[in-house]
Amino acid sequence: MRDPRRITGVYAIESADPARSAAGFAGEQSSGTFTAVPGETDELRERFGAEVVELVETGEGLPSLPSRLAPATVRSARVAVEFPMENVGTDIATLLAAVAGNLFELGDLTACRLDELALPAEFVAAHAGPAYGVAGTRRSLDQPDGALIGTIVKPNIGLGEDEFRGVVRDLARAAIDLIKDDELLTDPAYLPLATRVRIATEEIRDAEQITGHPTMYAFNIAGDLAGLRARHDTVVAAGGRAVMLPIPLMGLPALEWLRTFAEVPIHGHRAGLAAQMRHPGLGVDYTVWQQLARLAGADHLHVGGLGSKFSETDDEVATNIRALQAPLGATTPVLPTLSSGQNVRTPAPTWQAVGSTDLLMLAGGGIIGHPQGSAAGVHSLRAAWDAAVGGEPLSDLAERDDAVAKALA
Amino acid sequence: MRDPRRITGVYAIESADPARSAAGFAGEQSSGTFTAVPGETDELRERFGAEVVELVETGEGLPSLPSRLAPATVRSARVAVEFPMENVGTDIATLLAAVAGNLFELGDLTACRLDELALPAEFVAAHAGPAYGVAGTRRSLDQPDGALIGTIVKPNIGLGEDEFRGVVRDLARAAIDLIKDDELLTDPAYLPLATRVRIATEEIRDAEQITGHPTMYAFNIAGDLAGLRARHDTVVAAGGRAVMLPIPLMGLPALEWLRTFAEVPIHGHRAGLAAQMRHPGLGVDYTVWQQLARLAGADHLHVGGLGSKFSETDDEVATNIRALQAPLGATTPVLPTLSSGQNVRTPAPTWQAVGSTDLLMLAGGGIIGHPQGSAAGVHSLRAAWDAAVGGEPLSDLAERDDAVAKALA
Repeated sequence: MRDPRRITGVYAIESADPARSAAGFAGEQSSGTFTAVPGETDELRERFGAEVVELVETGEGLPSLPSRLAPATVRSARVAVEFPMENVGTDIATLLAAVAGNLFELGDLTACRLDELALPAEFVAAHAGPAYGVAGTRRSLDQPDGALIGTIVKPNIGLGEDEFRGVVRDLARAAIDLIKDDELLTDPAYLPLATRVRIATEEIRDAEQITGHPTMYAFNIAGDLAGLRARHDTVVAAGGRAVMLPIPLMGLPALEWLRTFAEVPIHGHRAGLAAQMRHPGLGVDYTVWQQLARLAGADHLHVGGLGSKFSETDDEVATNIRALQAPLGATTPVLPTLSSGQNVRTPAPTWQAVGSTDLLMLAGGGIIGHPQGSAAGVHSLRAAWDAAVGGEPLSDLAERDDAVAKALA
Repeated sequence: MRDPRRITGVYAIESADPARSAAGFAGEQSSGTFTAVPGETDELRERFGAEVVELVETGEGLPSLPSRLAPATVRSARVAVEFPMENVGTDIATLLAAVAGNLFELGDLTACRLDELALPAEFVAAHAGPAYGVAGTRRSLDQPDGALIGTIVKPNIGLGEDEFRGVVRDLARAAIDLIKDDELLTDPAYLPLATRVRIATEEIRDAEQITGHPTMYAFNIAGDLAGLRARHDTVVAAGGRAVMLPIPLMGLPALEWLRTFAEVPIHGHRAGLAAQMRHPGLGVDYTVWQQLARLAGADHLHVGGLGSKFSETDDEVATNIRALQAPLGATTPVLPTLSSGQNVRTPAPTWQAVGSTDLLMLAGGGIIGHPQGSAAGVHSLRAAWDAAVGGEPLSDLAERDDAVAKALA
């Protein structure tokens, strides 16, 4: 009997014959094979076969991707394919094999992009999702509302112990919400993770005595999986409040495993993700990927940034954020993390685009490079957020707030 | 002092100004930042900064990838960048963060492809590499030479216990070298991994009593990492001879972790890899990726197949195989695995292209669909390989070998 629970993927494809190719890849990604084999009964195909449930041709043109078949021109189409959930169960790696596995290299497709993914409630419910998310992060920071302000330790690599201590001290005393490691900094001999953890937690504790404000440090615990738990435990034992995982480099299964024992929020970095996302005719869209990263348990997720140095347009970044804001079963809301090029000018367009302050904005030069010091930098960003929410133009704010004026100049 | 050990990445990039962009991304991927910050001293940059050591412009044209910066035309270049090994240490995820992380989403690049990667001997030596590879697989199969012949259980999903048993029995009694799970088949309720392991190992043991030939079954142990070791142990406890891991879906760190406890060869599948590989202006080339998969411990690695249904041309597949044949420090040679569209016609061009029988050829319909049965299918492929190596035309072979004649027809 056919499983009524369906996983639906919507793909943008190109092919010399989209209908034939779509049927082919639906078979390839489920019970089909190119040569009919004994045992491939009608019952089996009926129960386990993926099905093309919609196909709309969208145009014609040159192939977007190379192929041994190299058709001169191809037709593009939007295709919805339903997979019986029974094929996949509730495992994320198996889901990926079905909806985002071999199909990207099929020669008769010259584009193949998973643009949308609709998961059955049962699949979603089988995953824990974020343990902390927005609410848990706010609790940990004693910061019930407003955009959260963070930064990356800079210089991002190469600091010795004393310099690192100085940077963390400065930022923690600026009453910043979050400090993080760069994705390039893991556990180098010149500044091992355990040393960073010791120094940063000490400095943050000391600073809290002065500012009264907790600061979260997201320690990058990327590295070998055999040591993942030990690195997490090092952070927790020292009183650290977050760990960071570059999800694409480590794999979604690593994130989901970390979630099973993490005692602090997981800051989900997306380094490397663009390799499978940036070409519009290949790979997996952010709106799909974020579902899996949330189900696997990321508490914070990088989305790029409006006005950033990255390739995505402001509209695309806003779409990323809105995807994170969309409900996903009963999972706790995740904290969208904006980075790159963030400064006092970015809260207003960000607020306009997404209408929420449940965001973590990572700013670099605007904090550590503020002429009046990091505390003024953090203050100027918080003030710019308040102004954005209140509808006050930045120029008005600058007239009554010197730190903002200096940041603008 | 500058670390004399260098990691060198060669990239194909596009930009409005390649020299400026290359310098920018070298900084971005090491000690640099867009806004100069306190503490970024000349000494730090000298010691930790990545360096553009070569840049050759290669043309001009339209941007390959979208970007918020959207230049009308761009210049392409081939750029060699050296990273101090001290930045990375010997960890694979950290290496990826440096050479294949954020850079793919930099807005001023409209193409960014890591085409070559040269690792210091010390980095290579820090990784175990394949524990079995070609030699260990041959030992396990009691098959000292000749191309190895394998197949995937078909139908690839949906079989019940009895049907599965029948397929494995048929193949094992055909004296095949390797049987494998499809990447779509992990641990479904209708045919759990533990059940497959029990049935397949029973059938393979029984068949060996008849044929005298050992058969390896590569069980797909993809799934949650918390259960990875238990799934591996299930295979080993039953006398299974191999496990399979779809590396891109699970992550290179998962492979390297599995390598630390694997007691049987790891069959490395590449499902999903094309998402970050197929566009020539984005992601990571196979020749780069295979180095990391070998260092992380894959014993077998999928390379596509000459004459396959996949997008890569025969030349590209041959290049993949030659990359696997190239020495990598003192690591044991890995077994290239050909799949898709493999039949009695493919040994000759494959032999011509790569001049080796240290290969595993996975054939589907040519075995299980052979009109005289699977044993004749396996025999016909072995005979076709012998003919290819001996320079005998397939038509001559077919005249004296009925199974080959039937396979051709």
